[in-house]
Amino acid sequence: MSGCPFLGRKRQLFTSKPSQAEEEDESQKGINKATKGGIVYGEYLQLDKVLSAQVLQSQQKGNKIHDEHLFIVTHQAYELWFKHILWELDSVRDLFIKNHVRDERNMLKVVSRIHRITMIFKLLVEQFAVLETMTALDFFDFREYLSPASGFQSLQFHLLEAKIGVADHLRVPYNRRHYRDSFHGQESETLLSSEQEATLLQLVEQWLERTPGLEKDGFNFWGKLQANIEEGLKMEKHKLEKMEDSEAKEDLLADLNKQTEVFTALFDPERHEHLLSKGERRLSYKALQGALMINFYREEPRFQVPFQLLTALMEIDMLMTKWRYNHVCTVHRMIGSKAGTGGSSGYQYLRSTVSDRCKVFGDLFNLATFLVPRAWVPKLNPNIHKFPYMAECYDSSYNSYSSEDSD
Amino acid sequence: MSGCPFLGRKRQLFTSKPSQAEEEDESQKGINKATKGGIVYGEYLQLDKVLSAQVLQSQQKGNKIHDEHLFIVTHQAYELWFKHILWELDSVRDLFIKNHVRDERNMLKVVSRIHRITMIFKLLVEQFAVLETMTALDFFDFREYLSPASGFQSLQFHLLEAKIGVADHLRVPYNRRHYRDSFHGQESETLLSSEQEATLLQLVEQWLERTPGLEKDGFNFWGKLQANIEEGLKMEKHKLEKMEDSEAKEDLLADLNKQTEVFTALFDPERHEHLLSKGERRLSYKALQGALMINFYREEPRFQVPFQLLTALMEIDMLMTKWRYNHVCTVHRMIGSKAGTGGSSGYQYLRSTVSDRCKVFGDLFNLATFLVPRAWVPKLNPNIHKFPYMAECYDSSYNSYSSEDSD
Amino acid sequence: MSGCPFLGRKRQLFTSKPSQAEEEDESQKGINKATKGGIVYGEYLQLDKVLSAQVLQSQQKGNKIHDEHLFIVTHQAYELWFKHILWELDSVRDLFIKNHVRDERNMLKVVSRIHRITMIFKLLVEQFAVLETMTALDFFDFREYLSPASGFQSLQFHLLEAKIGVADHLRVPYNRRHYRDSFHGQESETLLSSEQEATLLQLVEQWLERTPGLEKDGFNFWGKLQANIEEGLKMEKHKLEKMEDSEAKEDLLADLNKQTEVFTALFDPERHEHLLSKGERRLSYKALQGALMINFYREEPRFQVPFQLLTALMEIDMLMTKWRYNHVCTVHRMIGSKAGTGGSSGYQYLRSTVSDRCKVFGDLFNLATFLVPRAWVPKLNPNIHKFPYMAECYDSSYNSYSSEDSD
Amino acid sequence: MSGCPFLGRKRQLFTSKPSQAEEEDESQKGINKATKGGIVYGEYLQLDKVLSAQVLQSQQKGNKIHDEHLFIVTHQAYELWFKHILWELDSVRDLFIKNHVRDERNMLKVVSRIHRITMIFKLLVEQFAVLETMTALDFFDFREYLSPASGFQSLQFHLLEAKIGVADHLRVPYNRRHYRDSFHGQESETLLSSEQEATLLQLVEQWLERTPGLEKDGFNFWGKLQANIEEGLKMEKHKLEKMEDSEAKEDLLADLNKQTEVFTALFDPERHEHLLSKGERRLSYKALQGALMINFYREEPRFQVPFQLLTALMEIDMLMTKWRYNHVCTVHRMIGSKAGTGGSSGYQYLRSTVSDRCKVFGDLFNLATFLVPRAWVPKLNPNIHKFPYMAECYDSSYNSYSSEDSD
Repeated sequence: MSGCPFLGRKRQLFTSKPSQAEEEDESQKGINKATKGGIVYGEYLQLDKVLSAQVLQSQQKGNKIHDEHLFIVTHQAYELWFKHILWELDSVRDLFIKNHVRDERNMLKVVSRIHRITMIFKLLVEQFAVLETMTALDFFDFREYLSPASGFQSLQFHLLEAKIGVADHLRVPYNRRHYRDSFHGQESETLLSSEQEATLLQLVEQWLERTPGLEKDGFNFWGKLQANIEEGLKMEKHKLEKMEDSEAKEDLLADLNKQTEVFTALFDPERHEHLLSKGERRLSYKALQGALMINFYREEPRFQVPFQLLTALMEIDMLMTKWRYNHVCTVHRMIGSKAGTGGSSGYQYLRSTVSDRCKVFGDLFNLATFLVPRAWVPKLNPNIHKFPYMAECYDSSYNSYSSEDSD
Repeated sequence: MSGCPFLGRKRQLFTSKPSQAEEEDESQKGINKATKGGIVYGEYLQLDKVLSAQVLQSQQKGNKIHDEHLFIVTHQAYELWFKHILWELDSVRDLFIKNHVRDERNMLKVVSRIHRITMIFKLLVEQFAVLETMTALDFFDFREYLSPASGFQSLQFHLLEAKIGVADHLRVPYNRRHYRDSFHGQESETLLSSEQEATLLQLVEQWLERTPGLEKDGFNFWGKLQANIEEGLKMEKHKLEKMEDSEAKEDLLADLNKQTEVFTALFDPERHEHLLSKGERRLSYKALQGALMINFYREEPRFQVPFQLLTALMEIDMLMTKWRYNHVCTVHRMIGSKAGTGGSSGYQYLRSTVSDRCKVFGDLFNLATFLVPRAWVPKLNPNIHKFPYMAECYDSSYNSYSSEDSD
Repeated sequence: MSGCPFLGRKRQLFTSKPSQAEEEDESQKGINKATKGGIVYGEYLQLDKVLSAQVLQSQQKGNKIHDEHLFIVTHQAYELWFKHILWELDSVRDLFIKNHVRDERNMLKVVSRIHRITMIFKLLVEQFAVLETMTALDFFDFREYLSPASGFQSLQFHLLEAKIGVADHLRVPYNRRHYRDSFHGQESETLLSSEQEATLLQLVEQWLERTPGLEKDGFNFWGKLQANIEEGLKMEKHKLEKMEDSEAKEDLLADLNKQTEVFTALFDPERHEHLLSKGERRLSYKALQGALMINFYREEPRFQVPFQLLTALMEIDMLMTKWRYNHVCTVHRMIGSKAGTGGSSGYQYLRSTVSDRCKVFGDLFNLATFLVPRAWVPKLNPNIHKFPYMAECYDSSYNSYSSEDSD
Repeated sequence: MSGCPFLGRKRQLFTSKPSQAEEEDESQKGINKATKGGIVYGEYLQLDKVLSAQVLQSQQKGNKIHDEHLFIVTHQAYELWFKHILWELDSVRDLFIKNHVRDERNMLKVVSRIHRITMIFKLLVEQFAVLETMTALDFFDFREYLSPASGFQSLQFHLLEAKIGVADHLRVPYNRRHYRDSFHGQESETLLSSEQEATLLQLVEQWLERTPGLEKDGFNFWGKLQANIEEGLKMEKHKLEKMEDSEAKEDLLADLNKQTEVFTALFDPERHEHLLSKGERRLSYKALQGALMINFYREEPRFQVPFQLLTALMEIDMLMTKWRYNHVCTVHRMIGSKAGTGGSSGYQYLRSTVSDRCKVFGDLFNLATFLVPRAWVPKLNPNIHKFPYMAECYDSSYNSYSSEDSD
């Protein structure tokens, strides 16, 4: 019966700081309780602004087309949610920047917020189902009035991509022009400056590089892993060679050779640099090692939440791709493929963006290529290598319950 | 790569009316094509208003709480969609009012728009999943700043309920006050005036009353159905009475008696009036007959789309109930049940609104109670009873492709 | 509290035919009512078979891996639903074959069942979210035991694709082998024989070719449309040529030329045959005309449900594509891209199947390319061209309530 | 193009143990690779059993009703997923029982599996949308053949409820009979014996009771919290009393009194016992303290994953309730409310099960009632109270990578 979830409950008693609100109450004596002091629902949400922003171009031009309202509201809802994703993204980047997530106390916050972004993206993917209740014919009726407004102009979506780490030089150009050319003035600057900041990808990379256990003079995960794998492959080969000759044996040997190639390449830093330069890898060599380590030891208390973070990052990547794909499908439905008109169509362009090149955390997906039997994973002696939480070392003067965002 | 579905495609060539836009083009010579003439994305969507409406009360009071942003954006997204639902609802009511949907050409539009409302409600139900990423603790941190803003103040949700037909006198009062008391001035008037207009329920009722085939001097569906059912029940009874005595026989007889009661009540107009007066039925007796008729003959071309409409109306009812139920769950999670504090809690109140009393089209659900074997349904001879589409009678001067909303 | 939706309600009274059940009741005297006569839940659903079919290969080989159970259940759920989709698909094809859907009374059934298929596909797309709770590491632990079982062996999915109309010769070969090579014996034959039957695409094509209004000596939709469009384009050109020279004018002229090309191609039957031969169109020329006609006149009572059918068919196409795309994403997550190992990886193969070539009803999507202003659409005079429902002509001896599936 | 997600990839090389499979390969020389050795897709999934289990009662009785197939498949899909939920549930209960989750290394597994259950329940809630494509009329046509099979007979759902901890004595009786009466023989015993085992609720309770920090002679969380809250409330009262007399003041004082009551009750062990005995609380007093502690200190590395677990448990509770609610809605749609027939209808019964009494982890929801300002939460000095992970103390002989399920 209420249009709003759980706002409500009367004035909160516990005010940690002497508040203005109390005085206001004084001045409102005798007024109906529901609006006594404080703020009312519609004002709080600034509904006067939000709900007066639906102006139909078709109506302006004297030919009101019913469905244009859906078009506007859908896009506004997308933009609202993009704004909130940016809010979460900036807060996560901040947590990484300010604390180097040295303080593991922040990890729950980081994971929860990245998870929240995935939940929003899921909703945004669902949202296409609403837009798709509009048929191509309905759209055709007002399409002309929108010209030349174009979806390529959503500043927030571009910001979002940039801040996560979609590589500028890997973007598919549209009609041979850089995507940033669509923006001007303030917008163009906002975009440019955001590209100067550390991306989520870069911050995660730096964090992965600090994974405890990578130290060559310590646990030396990478060295131990390489030794184990080489030994393992050698033994496999030995075993296979003893088999009687057969087609099966040849197949197995061929497979083994491929595997050996894969791992030889993995342990070759120059190969990694080469792939980096081509954009086929995005994480530094050391960060890649950290990510693989977190995968192998994900059940260690120290690595449980970091593992969840890696999983959530992949989820974001995947959902952005699904969002783009659903977008492509909707466009196809609305304007057709325009095959035969010549010139790159909007549809064909969008189609090309649903590619692995646009994946930011593709390296995390590709870790699956480097899995090995558990027996090959270097053993961990937690008595010796503790991978302590930094949080357990902070000094007692730390004010553990300061407002989260003031830090 | 684009933040917006399928806006785009360059200026549309086909302009049925000489447009202003052309002249504007003239004045924009030499400007970058992307913004040449017309309107740009951000302006079109009025993003300056929409994206500047997120003001955190906690931040205003010097204690920025991160999650308040989610709270605001979620509610704004709800309100945006409520606005669009009202847009569709008003257009459907208009189609009923202006045309009495005498013109069956409007039926596709009516069904499509009601269907669109269900798709939006599905999204709104999903949307709780995003809000639920906020824990009770996160909410607690800024709850005090919202006071006394309350969800009971969402004007649009109340309008929506009123326009669909949630009965004013069946609403559960909150803290013994009428829900309209939460609104003041302009809002209160808007609400009051909307309550004077014909509700969707009433318009559907009138439309159902006109179902072809109900005429007593024509096909006389109701009379024929009553006769068939009475005959059928009599034969069932006869058959049962010939069975040997057994527990099974007694059970079957008891069941038959119940069924007979159900149908005796169905064919008793006074009983219907009684249920109407108690709010247990909402449709007039004749409309109920029309609805049952459409159900039984739904495969007749004449009744296919009407049947889809009845189904879609039930869907709306069900989804509003699910929305309320999910709302209740979220509230429980956020503020607990407050059992033991005395006074009706927000949770307990909301719980009570998820009741069948709030169903508007409950009568359509209850039709399932009155189904009978197909053999009992009065036969239709389409040579005699054609139930013609009015549309096929309209005169040729009718301009069939005038703008839909100008009629 | 119940594991089953709405089974229940006691013995139904109304039995149109004297049933065996009654006699059974006699023999069950004194037995607890819940199992008296008839059939019990577990037997009805054959749960002994369904719930004993989860045998973990890892467990068989002495190394039980917990997550293999999820893998099995997920795939079994997919197969269950595939079976049901085939059930609906076959019934729809039957309705088309037996009745040529000449009897419009079947249209509601056809549309409802196609719609149901889309609802199932939506669920199947969602279902990946459950499978994705399994990480690459979890999968790696039992992957070896599955060899060489392969998803390319799902007979039902291939049947489903074949019956809808995925073109055999358009399929991407896997490792240079025809997809049918994966099946043997009975399975291979089932597949082959299904490929001999009329596909949904073909049946829809035949139905579209019969669209009333296409007759050259009748309404002659295609001829009238061509004339209107040619006239319209000529007038546009005339208008543009009178403009003062400018960049804008040149752009508009270029656009107009493209549009003219598009429509010239549309009205060229040879061009259509050429595209057909390349697999870029799938519908016959006449069927394409019918589809466009239904789009333009969708609000006519006669065309409302046909229009819904076309929309639902596009939905199926889109959802199958989304299913494939989600599949690809899951595979990427589970086994990586295997880039660098050489040889076509499963991932790369799957990636290639998410292409427009696999769309069956792509022609319906591309109709959006051929939309024109409503003023250009040939006017319909319903007094002259009635497009009557065949149903209204059927003779009175037709048994309108025979069991639907006995026909 | 494949009916199966990511099965595939050829024989895995890395076999930790000498496998039978190799020898089999030998015997299969020359056979097409796709079926060489090992197991094929259809056999692996035992599709012969799963896909032959759809027998329509209506067809058996000579009157095939198309939609009965949907009814069967939907229920079988439910049962398949119920089986998997039981699989996860049993594994989680095992992890608790065997390790007392003393070994925090299991926490990721526990949380992930509980999370997976929530993902499945989400799917099951969605699944009603498929069933709802069947109208009441479609159902009516075969309803009689199902008698007396009843959803109340889903053994697995009852097991699932029992194992999670739905209280036997809190269940709503159906037609005055205990729900267990619906089962007989083996099924009844399975159910009974499952009720002897420790429920998830009990195991979580025991785990919560061991929360580090509850020790009275240690950090003494409960004692400190009580002292802080009492002090806080006293100061609030003091502050309020200094206000000038006004309606506002009275309101605030009334609120404060209610709050004081709430907390007085919270710190009263006898009150807790009383609520326990009435079934209004389910967790022991000490477990409740542990849960509140985890909530307040959820950002401590030690408590991050435990906090996620509590959240996931609430999610399960909520989703089971939503499942029941959606079930009720579907039933209402299918069979109506049967109002007027007398006797408790299936619908009315189901309606009653969607109550808070059926919530298992209601105590966790109600924690929201006991939140206090962060300043009132006892400060934690991590130098003194380390809440160490047990895992960090295990001895080096622990085989950290033994197969997970052999422990």
